[in-house]
Formats: sequence, C-alpha cells, structure tokens
Amino acid sequence: MNRFECLSCGKTAVPKACCFLCPDCGEPLLAAFEPGPGRRAIRMDKSYSLERYADFLPLAGADPRLSLGEGQTPLIPLSRLSAGLERPVLFAKNEAQNPTGSFKDRGTAVAVQRAVASGFRRIGTVSTGNMAASTAAYGARAGLRTFVLLKEGTPVTSVRAAAIYGPVMATVEGDYGRLYYESLRLGSELGICFLNSLDPFRVEGYKITGYEIYLQLGRKVPSFLFVPLSSGGHLIGLMRAFADLEEEGFADAYPTFVGVQAEGCAPLVRAFESGKIKFERLEKARTVAHAISNPAPPGGNAVLKMIRERRGILISVSDDEMLDAQRRLASTEGLFCQPESAAALAGWIKLGDRGGLSGDGAAVVVLTGSGLKTLQALEALPLPVHALRLEDLGRGLKALARTA
Amino acid sequence: MNRFECLSCGKTAVPKACCFLCPDCGEPLLAAFEPGPGRRAIRMDKSYSLERYADFLPLAGADPRLSLGEGQTPLIPLSRLSAGLERPVLFAKNEAQNPTGSFKDRGTAVAVQRAVASGFRRIGTVSTGNMAASTAAYGARAGLRTFVLLKEGTPVTSVRAAAIYGPVMATVEGDYGRLYYESLRLGSELGICFLNSLDPFRVEGYKITGYEIYLQLGRKVPSFLFVPLSSGGHLIGLMRAFADLEEEGFADAYPTFVGVQAEGCAPLVRAFESGKIKFERLEKARTVAHAISNPAPPGGNAVLKMIRERRGILISVSDDEMLDAQRRLASTEGLFCQPESAAALAGWIKLGDRGGLSGDGAAVVVLTGSGLKTLQALEALPLPVHALRLEDLGRGLKALARTA
Repeated sequence: MNRFECLSCGKTAVPKACCFLCPDCGEPLLAAFEPGPGRRAIRMDKSYSLERYADFLPLAGADPRLSLGEGQTPLIPLSRLSAGLERPVLFAKNEAQNPTGSFKDRGTAVAVQRAVASGFRRIGTVSTGNMAASTAAYGARAGLRTFVLLKEGTPVTSVRAAAIYGPVMATVEGDYGRLYYESLRLGSELGICFLNSLDPFRVEGYKITGYEIYLQLGRKVPSFLFVPLSSGGHLIGLMRAFADLEEEGFADAYPTFVGVQAEGCAPLVRAFESGKIKFERLEKARTVAHAISNPAPPGGNAVLKMIRERRGILISVSDDEMLDAQRRLASTEGLFCQPESAAALAGWIKLGDRGGLSGDGAAVVVLTGSGLKTLQALEALPLPVHALRLEDLGRGLKALARTA
Repeated sequence: MNRFECLSCGKTAVPKACCFLCPDCGEPLLAAFEPGPGRRAIRMDKSYSLERYADFLPLAGADPRLSLGEGQTPLIPLSRLSAGLERPVLFAKNEAQNPTGSFKDRGTAVAVQRAVASGFRRIGTVSTGNMAASTAAYGARAGLRTFVLLKEGTPVTSVRAAAIYGPVMATVEGDYGRLYYESLRLGSELGICFLNSLDPFRVEGYKITGYEIYLQLGRKVPSFLFVPLSSGGHLIGLMRAFADLEEEGFADAYPTFVGVQAEGCAPLVRAFESGKIKFERLEKARTVAHAISNPAPPGGNAVLKMIRERRGILISVSDDEMLDAQRRLASTEGLFCQPESAAALAGWIKLGDRGGLSGDGAAVVVLTGSGLKTLQALEALPLPVHALRLEDLGRGLKALARTA
C-alpha cells in the first residue's frame, strides 16, 4: 500500500519522502486503501492494537517495542447525564486514558511505526499542545530525534509537558496555518518526517478508536458519534473506520457523525451551514478551547465533503457550554476531560435540546484529552474550600454534612 | 467475608460501621480472607476487573456501573534504560493510565463498591492530592456525597483537580497524622464512610495490579517489584496479591519487594535499616515528592512486618535521584510519571548500582501516577525553546538538525 489520495480533488499520488500533500491542489493526502483478495478481519486473538486491526492499517508490520500501551480505552455509560431523556443511550469513549493523556497517541503510534520502517531517524510535528507531547513521547520511545514546532503563545504548561521527553523545541514566528505546509516541504528535504495532524498514517491510527467502539457496543454501530473538531484528522479517521466496517460487511448501518467546533473558531460550521464546499479561513480564533482552535484546519475541506456525503452534522458550542459540560461530566459521572473534549458533550446537549437526537441505539461522545492537561482553564471557577480545626472536627464535619 | 485482622498485633475483629482500626492497638485493620471450599480462580472470560478477580476480593458482588474503567494498564518493557546491564529484564507498570491518572483508582473502585453495598450515601477521604481526586471521581460516579479533608498547604492545582468532581472540601488545621484516625472515628459516627489510604477494601483493590503483572508476564512472578512507599497501602496490597497467587498454586516463587521512600521522608527505611519493629514518626518531611511524603504512615508497622517476613527491601532515594529518573524515563522510554513514581525507578538504579539486582526473570517498577499531575515540579528545569521565523524556517531547521 503506497498510494495516496486527495479527498478534496480526488487525485491519487505516490508522494516522495514524507510530504503528503496533493501535487495538484496542495491539500493533505490520505491513504488509499487497496484491500487484498480476502476479506479484512479483526484478529481478536491479538491484544496489541496494531496487530488486532492490521488488516485495516497501511503498515507492512508493527513493532510492539515502539508502543506505549495506547488504545483499549474504556467506553463508559453516562446513565446519570442522560437519565429521563428519550434519546439513544449515552456513552463516553475516554481517550484521556492513553499514554500521554490524549487521542493523539493513537495516530502517533501508527505514524511512528511508518517513520521507523521507512528509515527516518528524525521526526517532527507542528502543535499547540497535545500533539507535541504525544509525538515527543513516541519519538523518545523509538529512539528518534523529535522536532516540535510550537505556535507562539503556547501555554508554558503545555511546553513543559512536551519538553520532559527531550525533543528539540522551537516557537515559530509567522502564520501558523502556513507553518503546517512549510514544515512538510522542508522536512521532506531535510529528512525530518513531520507527523502533522493530517499525516495519512496518523489519520489511519484514529480509525482504531472506531473499531473499538464497535466491539465495545457488542459489534454494533452507534447511532450518533460526537467528536470535537479542529484540524479534521480525528473526525476523518473515525469516519473512515465505520466506512471500513460497512465495506467489509461488519455493519449495515453508518453513524450520524457530529463534528463540534468552538463558536469562537468555527470555520467549518460556517461553511457547512451556508452550504459551501470550501471553508474560509478565520482571521482570529477566540475561545478557551486551544486544542480545537484552528482557524485554517488542513483537513477542513475533506471534512466538509465527507460530512456532506455521509449526512453528518457540524455544530458549534460556546465556551460557557463547554465549561458547563466539563463540570457536569465530572460532577455527575466522575470523568474529567479538557474543555475541548467536553465540546462533544456540549454538542450532544445542544443537538438534543433542538430535538435532533431521537431513535434507539447508542450515542457516543469521544473525550479526546485529560482535564489534567488544562488545569489552568479552571482558574476562573470558584474553589469552595472550608476551613476546619482538628480539635473541633466533629462539629465541623456535622455542620458540613447537614448542608451537603 | 466480614472478618478483619490487625497486621501489627495479630488481633482479628468485626468492626462496626466503617472504622477499620484495631480495637487493641489502634492500627489499621486489613481484610482477613476466608476462602470458600474450592480453589480461587482468575476468570479470564470476564473483562471487568472486579469480576475477573472476584474470587480474590472481599465483595459479595460488583456493580459495573460504578466503574470508571480502572485497571488493565499496560506493562511496558524498558529495554533502552536497561540496555547493556546484566540485570533482570525491566518493565514499567503504568498506573498513570487509570481514570484519574493514578493507582488510587484501583483501590477506590473496590472501596466504593463496598460503601454502596453497605448503604452509605456519604464517603470521605483524607488526602494531599491523588486520593482526593480519585475518591471524589468515584463518589460522583456513584452519586454519593464526598467529603475531602485536605492537608493545609496542598498545592492549588491538586485542589482544583479534585474540586472539579464537586465534593465538599475542607482543609483541616492540626496534626495531619491524627486526622487519619479522627476522620475514621467521626465518620463512623456521622455515617460518612472514610476511604483512607489503609481502608481494607482499598488495599484489596491494589491487589489487582499484582494479578495483572503476573498475567502480563505470561503467568510468571517478577524477581523484583519496586513500589514507591508512603502510607503503605499500595505496597501491602501488592504483597498480598503475590501471596494469594502463591497460596492458590498459581506461582511457586515470590518477588523481592522493594519499597522506595524519599530521603527527606523515610521513617520506614530508617526503622528497616536499624532493625526496628516499629517506626518512629518524623517531625517534618522535606521532599518535592508530596505524594509519598507521609511522616507517620498508618500502614508503616504492617509494612515493616511484611517486608521482614518476606525478605523485602526498603531503600530511600534523594529528590535529585527521583527527578533524574523522571527525566530519563520520559526522554529514553517515552513515559512521563510523577517524581513520586520515578522513585521506583530511582530505587532500581540505586539497588542495581550496589550490585543488588542479579539473576534472571523480570524487574517491575510501578509508575503510580501521571506526570501531568505535578507539572509544577518541573518549574526548576531549564526549558530550552529556540525561536525561529517562518520566512527563514529552512535555514533554522537545518541548523537545529545539525546540532541534534
């Protein structure tokens, strides 16, 4: 498998080195799967994800030594949040339980396999946070040198969470949207394999989350799948997973995909709502949700096409709706995710309130990253901590218990 | 199963409500297992941990709805770190991939099952961090009211990471060591089931990590097991797990357990090295490793007894050794844990340097919690971030690639 296709213009290509951009229109190329003669199978006797789903991945093999134990994340029923509502049964797929605390590890795991198999000794990424940590971690694991190009103004806690893995780090002054493409071109020249958000191997890695959801629902396809939407890579991967399952006869239904953007950075929702085929890049993003704040998503046009073809939905939610969903998820169900991840739940609340969530089956919200990554986002919240004295603990506890 | 035993004085008791303290000597009581007539089995056909290991747990049943997907964490080979050393093969058991990012979830999951089955509507804990978040998360999941009593001076990020789950929180002025026992007594009166670090059900939950290690090593027992040591509950649970496996004929060997404390707070290492049966509480702890900084560990005397009986080892490591181990683990193997967790690896390095790690088999370090929980501990580290310009990215990257 070494053919690639442009989802936007339909062109197929065999690119050189690691610059997976369409030679015609410049958009990201995705893997064009050429199935062998037999049916593709899920190998349930294998516990390592890249072996279990090998038939669906564009890898000749997978070296388990490069794995950090990604995947096999829990699918948790959210019965309390959906109690009394006549909607499909609600579940959360908790991607925060991946090795570096976000879904990125799924994609990085596959992309690094390919980089190592292709002989690269250097990898890189362009990131505002989660992807930097994930790529640096897998780079360290594989003994590669990792180059992380950061957006100016990336929160210092995110920088530290990546720096611990020892990558070469640099902030790049200038247009962040252009940096995505420039890094791929320059990396290809310099022998640095940039695994950016739409890297075709990365996107294939995200498919595994979809296969797992299918198995965890008892070999059923959910009616709705809510995914926070930024560059588009994650949503595209998940959509491809269920297309695979359909194609191979595992499933006779396809989920309604709901991509959720932040109101302050929703170029794809704007295009979707006005029926446009191409999105217009935003000048400036205004949202607390840094991880889904991409004014020029490289997979944007591909997402618009796929959502149109598969009758999906794109909606946006406000920062307050995200933060409220984050709080409700933690205090009602015990799951603490990033505000960016809570966008998926906020989307579920919003779509349901509009009457858009009827029918049976299951609805799944994908929690993309751990709340521990963005503790600073909670700084505005009140922190009600009482003060008690040990000598008087009985009385103090009794008083608190009365009010609680 | 409702008998409990005091590991220190050997007394067995049937305590009332939820105050699991020895009526004779006041030390924590542990579950006294009374096996049924048949052999205990691991039920491999069950994927939910509390069902798979049900024969080994003091629960009449387990409600999967209370689970957050704890357990089944990866066992990762650390081949790079141990390359060229003639020591048992090194592995990390990564407990950071639990729902709230630490091993505490293993214990909380079992303790909350018991609290709910016993009809409690209120639970509580005494914590400096990880346990607060874990207990509050599982409390929220079960729809219970959770009371978190914090040590004065708990870092605000730890408070936030627990507050998101909506517990009642209070700092308690006064002796933190005494608070452990007072909360159990008062909780028992007030109907608040305090699940503190030596709660007997919590300790039984930690056993599951041991069973998993055994299965992940291909039904083999590791030669060495390194565990950070604070209150003692985690180490005791793991030691009981391998005692269970021995007793039931699953294994004919027992690991050498190595409990690792921080030099600045090592009351158990002091007692161990001077051959004492009881430890002396410290006046003050001096370490960056807050999560293993307990000057008066409630399970301390039980740990000393078990380590003596099973020929284990207790050693201490300096803050610098921990922080160095943390960095090496991240930059060499791609795993980012708390400094407290890296204590286990620092212990492995130290014991090996002393020639104490010979033989075949496997050595396992238990990584107790995610590095994302203690990003502030990295603030002293240099943060080398280069500055590049997009217009000049090719030259900038080339220069960086030459030096890297």
